[in-house]
Amino acid sequence: MSYNSFGTLFRVTTWGESHGPSIGCVVDGCPPQIPLSEALIQPWLDLRRPGKSAFTTTRNEPDQVKILSGVFEGKTTGTPISLLIENTNQRSKDYSNIAQSYRPGHADIAYDLKYGTRDYRGGGRSSARETAMRVAAGAIARLILGDKVKIRGALVQIGDQTIDRRNWSWDEVTNNEFFCPDAKMVPKWQDYLASIRKAGSSIGAVIELVAEGVPAGLGAPIYGKLDADIAQAMMSINAVKGVEIGDGFSAATLRGEENADPIYLADGKLSFSSNHAGGILGGISTGQPITVRFAVKPTSSILIPQPSIDSEGNATEVITKGRHDPCVGIRAVPVGEAMLACVLADHWLRHRGQVGQFRSTILDK
Amino acid sequence: MSYNSFGTLFRVTTWGESHGPSIGCVVDGCPPQIPLSEALIQPWLDLRRPGKSAFTTTRNEPDQVKILSGVFEGKTTGTPISLLIENTNQRSKDYSNIAQSYRPGHADIAYDLKYGTRDYRGGGRSSARETAMRVAAGAIARLILGDKVKIRGALVQIGDQTIDRRNWSWDEVTNNEFFCPDAKMVPKWQDYLASIRKAGSSIGAVIELVAEGVPAGLGAPIYGKLDADIAQAMMSINAVKGVEIGDGFSAATLRGEENADPIYLADGKLSFSSNHAGGILGGISTGQPITVRFAVKPTSSILIPQPSIDSEGNATEVITKGRHDPCVGIRAVPVGEAMLACVLADHWLRHRGQVGQFRSTILDK
Amino acid sequence: MSYNSFGTLFRVTTWGESHGPSIGCVVDGCPPQIPLSEALIQPWLDLRRPGKSAFTTTRNEPDQVKILSGVFEGKTTGTPISLLIENTNQRSKDYSNIAQSYRPGHADIAYDLKYGTRDYRGGGRSSARETAMRVAAGAIARLILGDKVKIRGALVQIGDQTIDRRNWSWDEVTNNEFFCPDAKMVPKWQDYLASIRKAGSSIGAVIELVAEGVPAGLGAPIYGKLDADIAQAMMSINAVKGVEIGDGFSAATLRGEENADPIYLADGKLSFSSNHAGGILGGISTGQPITVRFAVKPTSSILIPQPSIDSEGNATEVITKGRHDPCVGIRAVPVGEAMLACVLADHWLRHRGQVGQFRSTILDK
Amino acid sequence: MSYNSFGTLFRVTTWGESHGPSIGCVVDGCPPQIPLSEALIQPWLDLRRPGKSAFTTTRNEPDQVKILSGVFEGKTTGTPISLLIENTNQRSKDYSNIAQSYRPGHADIAYDLKYGTRDYRGGGRSSARETAMRVAAGAIARLILGDKVKIRGALVQIGDQTIDRRNWSWDEVTNNEFFCPDAKMVPKWQDYLASIRKAGSSIGAVIELVAEGVPAGLGAPIYGKLDADIAQAMMSINAVKGVEIGDGFSAATLRGEENADPIYLADGKLSFSSNHAGGILGGISTGQPITVRFAVKPTSSILIPQPSIDSEGNATEVITKGRHDPCVGIRAVPVGEAMLACVLADHWLRHRGQVGQFRSTILDK
Repeated sequence: MSYNSFGTLFRVTTWGESHGPSIGCVVDGCPPQIPLSEALIQPWLDLRRPGKSAFTTTRNEPDQVKILSGVFEGKTTGTPISLLIENTNQRSKDYSNIAQSYRPGHADIAYDLKYGTRDYRGGGRSSARETAMRVAAGAIARLILGDKVKIRGALVQIGDQTIDRRNWSWDEVTNNEFFCPDAKMVPKWQDYLASIRKAGSSIGAVIELVAEGVPAGLGAPIYGKLDADIAQAMMSINAVKGVEIGDGFSAATLRGEENADPIYLADGKLSFSSNHAGGILGGISTGQPITVRFAVKPTSSILIPQPSIDSEGNATEVITKGRHDPCVGIRAVPVGEAMLACVLADHWLRHRGQVGQFRSTILDK
Repeated sequence: MSYNSFGTLFRVTTWGESHGPSIGCVVDGCPPQIPLSEALIQPWLDLRRPGKSAFTTTRNEPDQVKILSGVFEGKTTGTPISLLIENTNQRSKDYSNIAQSYRPGHADIAYDLKYGTRDYRGGGRSSARETAMRVAAGAIARLILGDKVKIRGALVQIGDQTIDRRNWSWDEVTNNEFFCPDAKMVPKWQDYLASIRKAGSSIGAVIELVAEGVPAGLGAPIYGKLDADIAQAMMSINAVKGVEIGDGFSAATLRGEENADPIYLADGKLSFSSNHAGGILGGISTGQPITVRFAVKPTSSILIPQPSIDSEGNATEVITKGRHDPCVGIRAVPVGEAMLACVLADHWLRHRGQVGQFRSTILDK
Repeated sequence: MSYNSFGTLFRVTTWGESHGPSIGCVVDGCPPQIPLSEALIQPWLDLRRPGKSAFTTTRNEPDQVKILSGVFEGKTTGTPISLLIENTNQRSKDYSNIAQSYRPGHADIAYDLKYGTRDYRGGGRSSARETAMRVAAGAIARLILGDKVKIRGALVQIGDQTIDRRNWSWDEVTNNEFFCPDAKMVPKWQDYLASIRKAGSSIGAVIELVAEGVPAGLGAPIYGKLDADIAQAMMSINAVKGVEIGDGFSAATLRGEENADPIYLADGKLSFSSNHAGGILGGISTGQPITVRFAVKPTSSILIPQPSIDSEGNATEVITKGRHDPCVGIRAVPVGEAMLACVLADHWLRHRGQVGQFRSTILDK
Repeated sequence: MSYNSFGTLFRVTTWGESHGPSIGCVVDGCPPQIPLSEALIQPWLDLRRPGKSAFTTTRNEPDQVKILSGVFEGKTTGTPISLLIENTNQRSKDYSNIAQSYRPGHADIAYDLKYGTRDYRGGGRSSARETAMRVAAGAIARLILGDKVKIRGALVQIGDQTIDRRNWSWDEVTNNEFFCPDAKMVPKWQDYLASIRKAGSSIGAVIELVAEGVPAGLGAPIYGKLDADIAQAMMSINAVKGVEIGDGFSAATLRGEENADPIYLADGKLSFSSNHAGGILGGISTGQPITVRFAVKPTSSILIPQPSIDSEGNATEVITKGRHDPCVGIRAVPVGEAMLACVLADHWLRHRGQVGQFRSTILDK
């Protein structure tokens, strides 16, 4: 029950603080003989990398990943894969003024309440910087899952501005700085975020993930349910406050016949007329696309003064200078994808362990 | 990584099928010398028990829990506590007609896809009957947490009918058959559910949980976050499709200054002006009330025919007779409370292990 | 990290005290569609059962196992298998006189030191009675491993009387009350144990286990080593004080060339000229027989008075009446076999999860 | 169930190969506010370090440990501690000739059998080099346990040459290159090992560990037993083939009254007249010294040709050149100590989690 690890057979342990010398992770349980190199991980990190857009932190780091173990002659060996990224662009002095006071909405006070101490530089361990290692681990998870499994994410809402789903285009997602699937929404979001940043404020967002090609049978009831593990993974991402599978909270408003996903065979292949369930029934994948949504709160670090206390308990006001994302939800898109990939890879290995080959009475016909 | 266990230091393993001879659980890791008897567990089971209301299944079972181990002379000994409930009122013949076809929205087909087999009687392992053991385990978790920690839940929405929060009364919750905190909503829900049941249909719901008196410091970042473990626990409950902590999805619409919970000292005590965070920052409890919401989909077992296939792959229509809840969300209230109690007890023991006594620099002053 | 569970993918949780109403276990992670019934478990329990011999406890219980879940129409379903045995022949009054004093060499005082309480009746949780559930779980593990894997054990030493290995016959093992493979030793042990019992004393023993047909590749370095997990499993058995793999402590006296197991191909099959390693290299099985030895201390419950203290701290002398085995090592033979089966089944599933099919560069030729 | 992690609340994950760029570990679960710096870890590494003696490998590396995370202003923060050691003195060409053949007694063939591949340079992941990280983690474990807990080890046997226990002096242990507690044995071992090395051979050894000052109550029956976890930890060390607690295999030859450790109170303090049990009863520490012995096989890498096969299956003879220890048992002494420290620290945190303060009915008087 390591506090800094997730997964069971595919198990990732991350370490590092925002302003330490480096951050890293150990990926344990990766099957052997999978081609792996830094070049297969780096592109995913580049997607998440700060400094790319006008609307993410200007902390500009190359985030070059190094593989320190577990790979021999270009392939995994089955031994633990150690990944490391140097921290090259910390500016610790930015944070010295908040060493002695607590930023509302931030983890500062919670760490102090728990541990009696904290590394206050840039958020320390609670910094979103840690998510770089999730993305790196997710790149390995994708290699385990293979090309047939396609995991993609998009930003579907910023503040009260929601995309028009009729305009959805996956191709558009990588065309803009928001991972937005609706080309028409992009200029509106640009204006919207510009005004928020100008006000020294920040704003929340909603991300949607879709995993296609996931084989049926992943997930093990009752406490190894695939959707429960996805919910845990998403909620573990910084600033996430809500998670939905399939219809999510909308399902509460539906009647049984509206929520049912009728079943039929199409060319001998198991098919469903709809996907309210989000590809998971009873905690087990059905072969339908797995759909996940999660909500990210606005960045807590803002320039608008907030009432707070210092570490002596005196009332004060806190303004958080530094280089912050006005909408952390943007960079949460590749992080969410990576976490979903990790959960699926883990469940794939677990399923292969317990059940071996898939043995559906339906699909086998 | 037991598939049928949850928790780490306070660890619960459940077993049993809807129509087997009995269901049960093993509660491992309970501290010694805690007074425990069946009489301290049974009242919580009675709350969840079917057959109490016109709007839950008419399967009427006493659900008498027996303690088989781990208690000596009225107190826990630190050894595993085995709990068992006999299944007394199964009517397997009700289900024989669906042995060979798949109920849309149900776990039937998923179990078959994964395991190549399933115990189809009453849903087998996927039946909500398993949640009785969660409630029993939750009763023990409450004893570990003690009287200062108060965990309560309420049904706040059925279909599109949401309570008026201004009418909220915890006392009302135990006065009606819905766990509804709004007395004025009760007759409306009675009419609404009566019409749904008459139509042979079902409806979704939303449950809200509040844990007061939870000490600060529970939860361990990054992958032992309290909110992540709560999300996993809620999503593991049958039919749950969404989970929120604090403001949840609403947080996506907020600006930073709206979402911040300003901090102050009141009579030397750490206080917050609001609770958008739901009592958790950076994955760690702050001492504020922990607020959780989760959405339950409509019962999949309905009398309205749904297109499906049989195990031979032939098209068919499925009607699910039997004794089903038109709104499984109602009975999910005590289950949600119990899961929250289990997560909190587990994190309390984990925190005591890693950190020992709380050592807040603030609270210690 | 459940205290009363072992294994990871094949995970067993046991519960119950010597003089509670029953004992039991939950076997989680068993693959689906394996034929299973009480009749496939009971014979292994009958081997371990007390009351069969003049040299084991006269507590005579049928130890009838019941399957409460996880099996449908004669086959496993992939859901947890709950097993239960009623305690039918407890005589609690035998133990009342030792409720207030500590038996030297026994777990009494350790439980009190840890938990501040203990169920003193018959040893409570520390009773060897718990090992019945290990044997039951081991029977299921054997079914997972299949007929090609043969796990057998024998008693090779009682006190200072060691068998002559030249007389080794597996057929003889089930012919006598000692699980002794040397027919000539049997009458000597009968005399020896009779004199020890007459003196109100007890004696230690050494058990040897051999697992043949184990596929190569089980075990995962560095901390999932097969031999490390076997050592843990054996040392977890009551009264065990030492464990050896292969040559064990004798290996300390060998030179490198004496200890090497030369490798060759015989008819294209990987072969070794000797087996000092006990079938495991670098924590991974090689396909050779896995050989394990473990030492059991003499039963602590004896009729010869021992100096001790009572729970008030007063000096006293303790004599343990009751029905005890003069040599608990005898009944440890089927328990050791069962634990080895459980470890192998777990590692088989784990290996299948991480690596999938075996992919030896040698064996594939 | 990470394959490269050990411990639960105090959890260590190691990574790295003999000839990769570096090796490292992540120590997770360390309590906050413990003073920690490289200077507190390095001395323990220096004890284990190769190149110090004529009888250990001449691979001479400084083994300078770096702390990359988890420490702020000289104290632990409760977040994961990442440790790294650069590999500076690899000579990969030494091993090129054995890339295509299997060294008998070595893990080479086992890795290939499992993974279908291996990093053959210097043993890759199976190299004893990994044990440096165990020693580093053990240094942190010692800081958690504090000064009252004293963990020491000594080499008591090389080949058939056993020390005279009457000459035992802990002071002597750090005076010689063998960790030998018997000053008179040192010159004999020098001659003995010189002859073995001259012959191009190697020899086994036995190590003894003693932990004094361990509080009573550590270890949790049935499957969290302290002795079982110690056995697993020792057997996970490279080349270990046997483990004993207390009297170990000698206990098999004892009668009940010989093996009992009589109990008395001395000045109100719980005392025992002997310590056959090795400080552990029923899997729980009693407050007596914990005594552990383990056997190490001779180094498999020798200059005496051994029959083997190459990766094509052709018969060959293998000589292992390179820089090898003639007796790996010597350097296993600090490794054994470190593993014992880690197990005790983990169980201390686990005990504190489950039971809180010790609550002995005896000690509390």
